[in-house]
Amino acid sequence: MALIVQKYGGSSVADAASIKRVAKRVAEAKRAGNDVVVVVSAMGDTTDELIDLAQQVTPLPPQREMDILLTAGERISMALLAMAIHNLGVDAKSFTGQQAGVITDESYGKARIIDVSPSRIATTIAEGSVAIVAGFQGVNPSTNDVTTLGRGGSDTTAVALAAALKADVCEIYTDVDGVFTADPRIVPAARKIDRISYDEMLEMAASGAKVLVLRCVEYARRYGVPVHVRSSFTSHPGTLVTDAPAPATETATDPATDPAIDPATAEGATMEQPIIAGVAHDRSEAKITVVGVPDVPGKAARIFEVVASAGVNIDMIVQNVSVAATGLTDISFTLPATDGAAATSKLTEHQPEIGFASLQYDDTIGKLSLIGAGMKSHPGVSARLFAALSEAGINIEMISTSEIRISVVTRADSLDEAVRAVHTAFELDSESDEAVVYGGTGR
Amino acid sequence: MALIVQKYGGSSVADAASIKRVAKRVAEAKRAGNDVVVVVSAMGDTTDELIDLAQQVTPLPPQREMDILLTAGERISMALLAMAIHNLGVDAKSFTGQQAGVITDESYGKARIIDVSPSRIATTIAEGSVAIVAGFQGVNPSTNDVTTLGRGGSDTTAVALAAALKADVCEIYTDVDGVFTADPRIVPAARKIDRISYDEMLEMAASGAKVLVLRCVEYARRYGVPVHVRSSFTSHPGTLVTDAPAPATETATDPATDPAIDPATAEGATMEQPIIAGVAHDRSEAKITVVGVPDVPGKAARIFEVVASAGVNIDMIVQNVSVAATGLTDISFTLPATDGAAATSKLTEHQPEIGFASLQYDDTIGKLSLIGAGMKSHPGVSARLFAALSEAGINIEMISTSEIRISVVTRADSLDEAVRAVHTAFELDSESDEAVVYGGTGR
Repeated sequence: MALIVQKYGGSSVADAASIKRVAKRVAEAKRAGNDVVVVVSAMGDTTDELIDLAQQVTPLPPQREMDILLTAGERISMALLAMAIHNLGVDAKSFTGQQAGVITDESYGKARIIDVSPSRIATTIAEGSVAIVAGFQGVNPSTNDVTTLGRGGSDTTAVALAAALKADVCEIYTDVDGVFTADPRIVPAARKIDRISYDEMLEMAASGAKVLVLRCVEYARRYGVPVHVRSSFTSHPGTLVTDAPAPATETATDPATDPAIDPATAEGATMEQPIIAGVAHDRSEAKITVVGVPDVPGKAARIFEVVASAGVNIDMIVQNVSVAATGLTDISFTLPATDGAAATSKLTEHQPEIGFASLQYDDTIGKLSLIGAGMKSHPGVSARLFAALSEAGINIEMISTSEIRISVVTRADSLDEAVRAVHTAFELDSESDEAVVYGGTGR
Repeated sequence: MALIVQKYGGSSVADAASIKRVAKRVAEAKRAGNDVVVVVSAMGDTTDELIDLAQQVTPLPPQREMDILLTAGERISMALLAMAIHNLGVDAKSFTGQQAGVITDESYGKARIIDVSPSRIATTIAEGSVAIVAGFQGVNPSTNDVTTLGRGGSDTTAVALAAALKADVCEIYTDVDGVFTADPRIVPAARKIDRISYDEMLEMAASGAKVLVLRCVEYARRYGVPVHVRSSFTSHPGTLVTDAPAPATETATDPATDPAIDPATAEGATMEQPIIAGVAHDRSEAKITVVGVPDVPGKAARIFEVVASAGVNIDMIVQNVSVAATGLTDISFTLPATDGAAATSKLTEHQPEIGFASLQYDDTIGKLSLIGAGMKSHPGVSARLFAALSEAGINIEMISTSEIRISVVTRADSLDEAVRAVHTAFELDSESDEAVVYGGTGR
């Protein structure tokens, strides 16, 4: 018997039939002897419809009222799900974020969780009932007003509740089978990852993998909550995000008896994490090039101060080698394309002071990231990555690396091809005979 | 400067355009120097849509979850209205029933208000903001769970808040111009009543007038809250429900100078309440006749005990004169048609014990009620009523009276004609020259 927190997104509870299907799944988990807490998002397009209504009423809704409006969506889905579970003969009660003890700061629309005190939830499961909790919402204790957690808020609610209740696992139900070695829409041979570390999952999420949001993974890592990402349409296991070692049975091939395996790399593959977890991609960034910056100390810092003052986060940075004759250099950086207008207008405003010649804005870039905790101890990963891209005729515009990630910027229209080439080069394709070298079949 | 509680129903906030129109009206009241509290229902058909969703999920939704579900509707409309008012440059904040301090018992689905502690509302209006409050809902303090107040709950919320805040008036906005002397769809010559006492309004509501629910009028009478029923589509005054004497200017005709008026009745019309307030009708009742009841003491009481044990309220009762030869009598009573099945099945169950011969069920009846505080001191009102119905060829099946009301049961298909005949006979028609005798023009 375990304590399980399950989270179902909007597409899993889009209509009455879907809600009944989810109810059946929850009832099964409960009947199997588990304590079950369910976090639920608003039904299907409800949130978008409410935003649309607000925009019909006013171009600039006060954020406090917007949060009150949007939280109606989860109120509807949580009550319907509780009813549907009750109809299957299993006791269930629904709770708002406030009733579940999700305490946040007062940043309406993007509140951060500052505490979780789920005493009503603990009482409810102790009584043998299933507790249904509205995702995406909490309460600002200084005013007793409802707040929303922003994008990915329901996943974060689920992980936060799992941490506070010391749940055995937090199951995130979604419309895909788990986390893949690459987006299967781009790489048909992509494989589902069975097990991934928090650090790798963080890098995947930060690099464009959409299945889990960054803050949810951060929360899970901080509190050591095992997160199981799985499909709400099948009962297959999905991807387990955890730092706990895999059970021995998960190693599909024994290196000692398989003559095809090089003992040097095989040891790494079985004793430690596999080298490569997957290939992520991101089309949401743009590149700004500040042309003709005086190559004197402090100019680059000033540029990034100005961009930061617009509330914009920068991702990758490249400074060209200065041309000695002119004393000028070019600085390029990437940023979310949605922040492009804010950053360029702020830079233009400070152009006289910084003294650059012009700005170039390019939103037709793509970013590919190769992620794997094993790469830090394996030389040659970069070389293999660049070779693969070169063989595919793809030009690299920018590069950045961390201990467990290498990211490159390409033209946006080359990105799909780049992802496929890299996925194949690192033998992540599901048909590859050598996958075990990179830990492929064991994941 | 006054403190005004305004209540807008679902049809007044059915879509974004309607919400903006209501916002304009609220902003005007605020800009005119008043403190304004607004109680709002769910938008248009939202409640019906939510009930429909629940029924798709389960045939028997737990009432606690049903209340959570339904209260999402007001959450949406209150936030949108606050946004729309804010957009007009007037500060507005929305509050749930719980936040507004509406404390109820724990009868989910039909909770009774046990206390109202609107400290957040008082603070909000003291700060110069408009407070928007979700109607129809409160909180059960023993569990901190949301409750709904049942039919007419938003009107009751408005009157309860007005009482707790000691508001100068509670304005109930609706899609008609006020309370009429009869339903204008049946009597085109029906006149709007300018002023009506709590007792008369109570009898009107209890007798089928739908513009205000009974419990709301009861609450208003108990706390002396003046209720102004008016149209949300015009700025004309509607009907004021109050026991306060009308200002002298409301008497349209001066009896001392108008030679057409008989001084004897004119004194009553000007010094006291007018005789007749209006004619109400009700098509929602049915009649059960218990045939062949042994005419011995205790049998009638036993019949009504059995009906009461089914949770059914009885309205009118008639016992036929016993036929001495048989020692049997017939007992007829009326009840809400929706309770017909429950009452007949309970009676059939107890048939052997009570010993009646058979049951007759008739749901093709109509009830007409003539209401007026003045009738208690004016003889001849019943005689005039029966004469009017007789002249129109309408048969009376049952009669009941109170100090300020006479009700008769007719065939359902004669009811419209009966209402028109009585309305004309008591000179309530708007074209009548003698209307002032019955206080007509003064109301």
